[in-house]
Amino acid sequence: MTGKNTIGFNLSSDSKRTFQTFNPVTGNSNPTVFFEATFEEVNEAVSLAQNAFVQLKSISIEKRASFLIEIAQEINQLGDELIQMYCLESGLSEQRAITERSRTIFQLNSFAKEILNGEWIKASIDEADSTSTPIKPDLRKMMIGLGPVVVFGASNFPLAYSTAGGDTASALAAGCPVIVKSHPMHAGTGELVAQAITRAAKKTEMPNGIFSNLNAQGYEIGRHLVEHAGVRAVGFTGSLKGGRALFDLANQREFPIPVFAEMGSVNPIVIFPQILSEKLAKIASHLATSITNDAGQFCTKPGIVITTNSGFANQFVNELKLKVNEQVSFSMLNPSILQRFEERKKEILSCDNLNFFETEKLSGNNIGRQTIVVVDAKQFLSQQKLHDEAFGPLSIVVLCDDLGQLNSVLSSFDGQLTVSFFGTDSEIFANQHLIQQATEKAGRVIFNGVPTGVTVSPSMTHGGPFPATTDARFTAVGIDAMQRFLRPVTFQNCPQEMLPAELRNINSLSIPRRINGEWTSKDVHKKD
Amino acid sequence: MTGKNTIGFNLSSDSKRTFQTFNPVTGNSNPTVFFEATFEEVNEAVSLAQNAFVQLKSISIEKRASFLIEIAQEINQLGDELIQMYCLESGLSEQRAITERSRTIFQLNSFAKEILNGEWIKASIDEADSTSTPIKPDLRKMMIGLGPVVVFGASNFPLAYSTAGGDTASALAAGCPVIVKSHPMHAGTGELVAQAITRAAKKTEMPNGIFSNLNAQGYEIGRHLVEHAGVRAVGFTGSLKGGRALFDLANQREFPIPVFAEMGSVNPIVIFPQILSEKLAKIASHLATSITNDAGQFCTKPGIVITTNSGFANQFVNELKLKVNEQVSFSMLNPSILQRFEERKKEILSCDNLNFFETEKLSGNNIGRQTIVVVDAKQFLSQQKLHDEAFGPLSIVVLCDDLGQLNSVLSSFDGQLTVSFFGTDSEIFANQHLIQQATEKAGRVIFNGVPTGVTVSPSMTHGGPFPATTDARFTAVGIDAMQRFLRPVTFQNCPQEMLPAELRNINSLSIPRRINGEWTSKDVHKKD
Repeated sequence: MTGKNTIGFNLSSDSKRTFQTFNPVTGNSNPTVFFEATFEEVNEAVSLAQNAFVQLKSISIEKRASFLIEIAQEINQLGDELIQMYCLESGLSEQRAITERSRTIFQLNSFAKEILNGEWIKASIDEADSTSTPIKPDLRKMMIGLGPVVVFGASNFPLAYSTAGGDTASALAAGCPVIVKSHPMHAGTGELVAQAITRAAKKTEMPNGIFSNLNAQGYEIGRHLVEHAGVRAVGFTGSLKGGRALFDLANQREFPIPVFAEMGSVNPIVIFPQILSEKLAKIASHLATSITNDAGQFCTKPGIVITTNSGFANQFVNELKLKVNEQVSFSMLNPSILQRFEERKKEILSCDNLNFFETEKLSGNNIGRQTIVVVDAKQFLSQQKLHDEAFGPLSIVVLCDDLGQLNSVLSSFDGQLTVSFFGTDSEIFANQHLIQQATEKAGRVIFNGVPTGVTVSPSMTHGGPFPATTDARFTAVGIDAMQRFLRPVTFQNCPQEMLPAELRNINSLSIPRRINGEWTSKDVHKKD
Repeated sequence: MTGKNTIGFNLSSDSKRTFQTFNPVTGNSNPTVFFEATFEEVNEAVSLAQNAFVQLKSISIEKRASFLIEIAQEINQLGDELIQMYCLESGLSEQRAITERSRTIFQLNSFAKEILNGEWIKASIDEADSTSTPIKPDLRKMMIGLGPVVVFGASNFPLAYSTAGGDTASALAAGCPVIVKSHPMHAGTGELVAQAITRAAKKTEMPNGIFSNLNAQGYEIGRHLVEHAGVRAVGFTGSLKGGRALFDLANQREFPIPVFAEMGSVNPIVIFPQILSEKLAKIASHLATSITNDAGQFCTKPGIVITTNSGFANQFVNELKLKVNEQVSFSMLNPSILQRFEERKKEILSCDNLNFFETEKLSGNNIGRQTIVVVDAKQFLSQQKLHDEAFGPLSIVVLCDDLGQLNSVLSSFDGQLTVSFFGTDSEIFANQHLIQQATEKAGRVIFNGVPTGVTVSPSMTHGGPFPATTDARFTAVGIDAMQRFLRPVTFQNCPQEMLPAELRNINSLSIPRRINGEWTSKDVHKKD
């Protein structure tokens, strides 16, 4: 551990401003001293990234894929050192660290595999037609990278949504150099992963500048990065306040750039009465785990549970409280996150006409007490403060008089990452309008399951309408996450030898291409 | 002609504020009095559009396609009335009107055809795997419409980029209701087309509110539309100032929405010396037409022509002036557009160390005199005022000492819709770095051709980095233009009968689907 910034292949520590990370379980600072990046170091990282972007164009997709695979291997080879650092800086369990490492490695390998099939290139060829009016030229289109991408790591996913997480992997896969603004709460984990990426880049002969990792505690470095003329896109995972601030900065630039900020949501859970009567204990148990696991510090944590005041509602609430009380309590990621949780909880509990249950205060450090709030739908609808996310182990149960009121509650939500329904088949079928409404609200609609545990798969949408994300047209998870960092370019009447390999008559890369409207892997003009 | 606003299936004229369109050729106002939309009328149009959006979900893609085809037929059936109105309001020729109508009809029919093949739905199915760790749920993803879209018509394309133009066609194709803010310079053309759309909507039983057309001369109505909570996206074609203003409004909303603004560019043309010596007259002639046709009022008009000071440069400049002088002069679209052209021209001509040629002043009304400006590269590079678009029949020839300086000139440009190269195969091959640079600057790179004449084809990119557009990741022309108005949604463990037809096991729509990573038109689980 050096505490230094990774600027391309070099380490750098120009600043006198330093900080340390914090172990929320022990309540002590961790030993490594991290050097804040300076504006000059930012400029150097961006300048190297711009050069690397140009050089990347003449590097094959196979080599790019091998770089991603090598990163995965290097991360794996960090072994226990990485797991220990992760735990020291986050307070999360070793098991969670191992699971998240697996996810990170799986993501990198998935992108490596999927860029090789070439579907994301969306190669499209329309041959010239001199007999048409007007005359049609030869047009050939493909996707290329936007340019250097800045990634802001998430506090709650030191591996899978941070230094070599989904944003970095999808940007690198798209041929974009990445500059990570390392999350200050886990700068050591970030440095270890950055070293792994740098080793992988050298081993696979990637250009210097394809990756940089910058330390910073305050906002200035992030701001300078987002405002830098050489930066072409931003990926962010975190709070609404943080994401919105970066989004505004990027849009106020002389030349605006896209920001994909994933900012969490309350992930409403709807439970219909029949299923509640049939599976009350199972649902309560399932939800209790999802609400409290790792102190509820997930963007897909169920923040609001909506059901009707059927005969079983009280029994369900009691069972949920009981199950929540049985869950292990966790230290939150950082005292500042605990403090924000406590403030938000106070705001919620100050609302009118609700009751709540919280687990007893434990002796550990930075424990977020698990809390279930219960409120009637009418009270919920009239108090906007209850509608926003509380990051931590808290969920609000909203009790509705009937399904009509439940509909009103669901309508009252802003954009969400997920909406979940627990119901029998006939209940779900009878409430199609609610499902329809949920598809307008959320990127993912879940049936008889909880939203935590985001599967890495091409059919996943981890996104949703604002304020879940800044752009509902994209996903942060799965191969389609690359689309955030790609743009089309068309070559008109270009000589064969000047075309990229992807668009030449001979399909040497064997990628799928849309030729005169038909998808094929064949060469142009060879109908065999 | 009623001069009224089209609000869903009704006509409305609540306001006392009115305006007329203007015939730039005769210099007279046209007779119809148009009623400005009121805020209440905007609200009504958005409210109807929101309802229509919900109803559209239960209408098949076949019916949506038949709506687009019916619009094309209704526009065709407007016959001479439309052509005459177009000419009266734009000063453009009858031939241009007919060509643009064909393009508009072709676009509508293309979208109708292409939405039926279902590729744009990007249906993706990953089956559950209970043996994997963690367990994989059943995930099914597809694209759906964003919601009501506001379209701002272009002054220079009263048909193809206006009321039923590319933005409207692609939004309707995507399942989004459209509210057009009609361009005040051709409100009559807009009304005729709006009537055609309304007739088509009724004939094909589309929901009331799928389309509205609002008149307004000032900015307030456009602003109110873009700020309206019920609006989900914006399409715009016009000036940088106008597009940027809408982009800023949309991003400053409490819930930001995407704006795709296509704002034009200078479309640099690079001519290498060898080709110039071989085809001097042909290139000059080709360029002269492209620069001056329809008074140079195209977003893809070549605004800057760059070549080296070879032995043929002077001869080329003289030939270009000669050919430009032979072109017909046109009235510009509107006195205000002529005025802006004159002001911009004055700004350009006030720069240091340039010379220019302009055609003689003609006796017609609102004639934009055709102008060729000639400047050395060094002078060009030092005067930023020369770099921006001049909307009208003006082009700047930049003479470079050598290819190195030509490289510097090309580097100095911001984002462009197009960059074109004239060169022999060997010249183009020898200057690969310039081609590479052009792909970073522009959405379309053209070889031995002019940028005007944007082919409607799947492989077209009509877009490019800012300031050519507000988002380089999209195109405004071709089937992929729909992507501006689509977002993914994932269904997790959804019962079969609750899934949209696109995602059920039985592929009743016979669309291409990615099942467990492989594209197929087969049903799930049926390997026949």
